[in-house]
Amino acid sequence: MQSTPDLYAYVCGEVLPLKNAFLHVSDLAIQRGYGIFDYFKVQHGQPVFLSDYLSRFRKSAELMALPVPLSDLELQAVIRELIQRNGLELSGMKMILTGGYSANGYDIATPNLLLLQQPLALPSVDAQEQGIRVITHEFMREIPQAKTINYTMGIRLNRQLQEQGAADVLYHQQGVVSEFPRSNLLIVKQDGTVCTPADNVLLGITRKNVLALARKKYPVAEGVVTLEDVYQAKEVFMTSTTKRVLPIVQVDDQVIGTGRPGDVARGLLNELIALEAKEAAAV
Amino acid sequence: MQSTPDLYAYVCGEVLPLKNAFLHVSDLAIQRGYGIFDYFKVQHGQPVFLSDYLSRFRKSAELMALPVPLSDLELQAVIRELIQRNGLELSGMKMILTGGYSANGYDIATPNLLLLQQPLALPSVDAQEQGIRVITHEFMREIPQAKTINYTMGIRLNRQLQEQGAADVLYHQQGVVSEFPRSNLLIVKQDGTVCTPADNVLLGITRKNVLALARKKYPVAEGVVTLEDVYQAKEVFMTSTTKRVLPIVQVDDQVIGTGRPGDVARGLLNELIALEAKEAAAV
Repeated sequence: MQSTPDLYAYVCGEVLPLKNAFLHVSDLAIQRGYGIFDYFKVQHGQPVFLSDYLSRFRKSAELMALPVPLSDLELQAVIRELIQRNGLELSGMKMILTGGYSANGYDIATPNLLLLQQPLALPSVDAQEQGIRVITHEFMREIPQAKTINYTMGIRLNRQLQEQGAADVLYHQQGVVSEFPRSNLLIVKQDGTVCTPADNVLLGITRKNVLALARKKYPVAEGVVTLEDVYQAKEVFMTSTTKRVLPIVQVDDQVIGTGRPGDVARGLLNELIALEAKEAAAV
Repeated sequence: MQSTPDLYAYVCGEVLPLKNAFLHVSDLAIQRGYGIFDYFKVQHGQPVFLSDYLSRFRKSAELMALPVPLSDLELQAVIRELIQRNGLELSGMKMILTGGYSANGYDIATPNLLLLQQPLALPSVDAQEQGIRVITHEFMREIPQAKTINYTMGIRLNRQLQEQGAADVLYHQQGVVSEFPRSNLLIVKQDGTVCTPADNVLLGITRKNVLALARKKYPVAEGVVTLEDVYQAKEVFMTSTTKRVLPIVQVDDQVIGTGRPGDVARGLLNELIALEAKEAAAV
């Protein structure tokens, strides 16, 4: 993030060069890892599905007792200013809200709001065409409905991913799967139903859009998905803002379906790309 | 923390005024709540039980794959410099190690090390003499053996504590208790045994010292402690660096023993204070 010194960021009321974007060490994110965030794409100068992201940002803030210092209109004005100043073709905008400068390092103070825009790296063509391999780990995020900044477990598992040559890790509890650290899970059962875990997951905006697209063509079920369901699925894929629809061809030692990305994932990816383009053009 | 502008802090290799102690927003603590810390007392210019705290700091760092940039000798030199510059009578020193300035906001970079010294507030005489009331909550920290900066759950429960007039919250899983967000739990059973949870807890330095003091006088057991054990105990108390030995006289709706702090807790507190004084004098 420090290698892009020409970008601007918003820090606690001010737009300034990203290289000058600092928080005092008394901030509750540094002291206690306390904060929430959200992250949306900006394509050709237009935020994509912004109202969904703003509303989830407010929901996370509420779940963590953090008042958002700006109205939606004020947030949108800051977002527009950063987009204009930074002039990036394809980017991600991160909004972070921390517990603020805490006098005793534990109690919530006036939250600090950051907006950071960065060039965006989409999954490689290779990952998209070959699919990725994931492993599984028994874990559930503390407050699954909130997009907190706490990625302790996900980041700690990075070493294991590298050692095992896996691209990501799927969380489960006693065999009931939930989500990836930064993505949702969808599967296509042998009978063609598109299924996704209903509970203990972050309600992804891409998940929502992909489910809506899937409903036009396939039976769709939100409910309990087990590891066994995943292993036996015809197709498995993840959805996220940056990954869009990314096929998964192996979970632990189990090859999924034919071991190649499937038609459902491919079709949904293309429709999502079209939907995003339409949304970006419509703003 | 910002109200003490004359203090000095150590930030990534530099000793500077605390008011100028900032981290860039790309730090993994801000981006992903990723970091560890430790915290020890300084009495009359002497760190108390420093080697225990340094070794736990290194253990937490190792569990989170964060290399500590300084040797123990170098850390001790920084600690001495801060103690000398800040000249506080009674204080706490916090060492924080974050995931560093991450280029992609997710992968661990070169860790950032902070040392922050602050005046210390011990429990009020009232809390010590009357004992405190606590509630319980089903939760377990993600990596109990590591002192990570993640206090999402503890801080989020603050509002509930205030509403219920409780001073702290005891974590349990299906009735098996573990710890408080920042303290360990000890109980005295009706038969006089001093018991404390053995697993899924942070191994407190004060816990260790108090258990050693208790072993001289009482049978001591580290093992499984249930909520029922706590409710039925003769005495309940918490131990921590700042709390030392703090009596608990009510857990949820259950009054403990006579509803007054007990002799075992009082005796151990006095012996701990003496041990700390001896340790501070011996350095």
